Amino acid sequence: MRRRMGVEERRQQLIGVALELFSNRSPDDVSIDEIASAAGISRPLVYHYFPGKLSLYEAALKRAADELAERFVEPHEGPLGARLLRVTGRFLGFVDEHGPGFSALMRGGPAVGSSTTNALIDSVRQAAYDQILAHLGVTAPPARLELVVRSWISLAESTALIWLDGRRIPRAELELQLVHDFAALAAVSAAYDDEMALLLGGILADEPADGPFADLLGRLAALAPRAVLP
Amino acid sequence: MRRRMGVEERRQQLIGVALELFSNRSPDDVSIDEIASAAGISRPLVYHYFPGKLSLYEAALKRAADELAERFVEPHEGPLGARLLRVTGRFLGFVDEHGPGFSALMRGGPAVGSSTTNALIDSVRQAAYDQILAHLGVTAPPARLELVVRSWISLAESTALIWLDGRRIPRAELELQLVHDFAALAAVSAAYDDEMALLLGGILADEPADGPFADLLGRLAALAPRAVLP
Repeated sequence: MRRRMGVEERRQQLIGVALELFSNRSPDDVSIDEIASAAGISRPLVYHYFPGKLSLYEAALKRAADELAERFVEPHEGPLGARLLRVTGRFLGFVDEHGPGFSALMRGGPAVGSSTTNALIDSVRQAAYDQILAHLGVTAPPARLELVVRSWISLAESTALIWLDGRRIPRAELELQLVHDFAALAAVSAAYDDEMALLLGGILADEPADGPFADLLGRLAALAPRAVLP
Repeated sequence: MRRRMGVEERRQQLIGVALELFSNRSPDDVSIDEIASAAGISRPLVYHYFPGKLSLYEAALKRAADELAERFVEPHEGPLGARLLRVTGRFLGFVDEHGPGFSALMRGGPAVGSSTTNALIDSVRQAAYDQILAHLGVTAPPARLELVVRSWISLAESTALIWLDGRRIPRAELELQLVHDFAALAAVSAAYDDEMALLLGGILADEPADGPFADLLGRLAALAPRAVLP
């Protein structure tokens, strides 16, 4: 029993060390020697716990995926706009911390195409989708709502990836923009579909006048005439 | 000289046959035997022209990428909203024709992670990005414009992928929605940034009152009070 705990502890330590190295440099550039050295053990001992770099990479990815999914959890209290802003902030914090590893993973890292990796990425997307639907209080989403939520999750991923390439926009601005993007995509859908308009109306009815959603609508309304008139 | 033409013609025929098979079923499920049979030649002869399925897949993908990039080309005439709507229509037409192959490729097909495949996908994204900037008449895009354009391209990809899974929304509606999404993402950026507001103002100044951009702004303005007031 005692020895088993030791094995598991060592595995967890190696996963932590590997995750930190994979987060700060492209996983392709991280060697098993480096991981062994950072963990203070020998290279053969690393192989004792993990048969190869891919299995250690997948274990590190699993821990990162669990950590990210935990950040999606938000109490069902208060206005939805503020909730989404907090979760989006934690998501971008995660991306910021794991930048190079996140980029490598999403752009085609060492284990891309492996079914384990793809399943992990999909499970994180699904966790985000499930959380958003739960906050919206919707159990059987119409096709247009599913499209808005899933495509926004994909937009959040790609926005984060584009941002990581140079970080030319302040992170706080990006967080607010993503929340606004969600409102904008929902509004586009609602502008042409009554079911979505009803849903959006219900969400906005509970939004405070100084929340991120109301603020955007005010600014867009102000923008429209200014922009259309030369 | 004559024989060389024959070789190239045969290669092109095989690429066409393979592209059609890869478009209608997941490439993983298409065998070299099937390709040979559809082309009316023997299996060893296929291998004479392409060393393996991966090289034939990559050649088919190259042709599809070229075809898609051609569909992005649009005359620089008339309102921008109508131009974007035409190009988006051709893009979704392409996705519709090559559905299973497009899904497999973007979700992790047989050659995902291969540098050739990733470079091809990136080159198509870059072609779309270059075209949009050219139509906007912008050569040195500010960071926020680059983010809007690149993230919209990614949104168009993911929207198409989500749509392919069941096709529960009419294609024509999706085309218009994507054009509106572009306007909405640009408007969100413009609502908080003067440079983007100036750019958007310039675009909207030339839009006709019955174009897709003006129509959306009118509907959003109508939606705002309806939605905010319970």
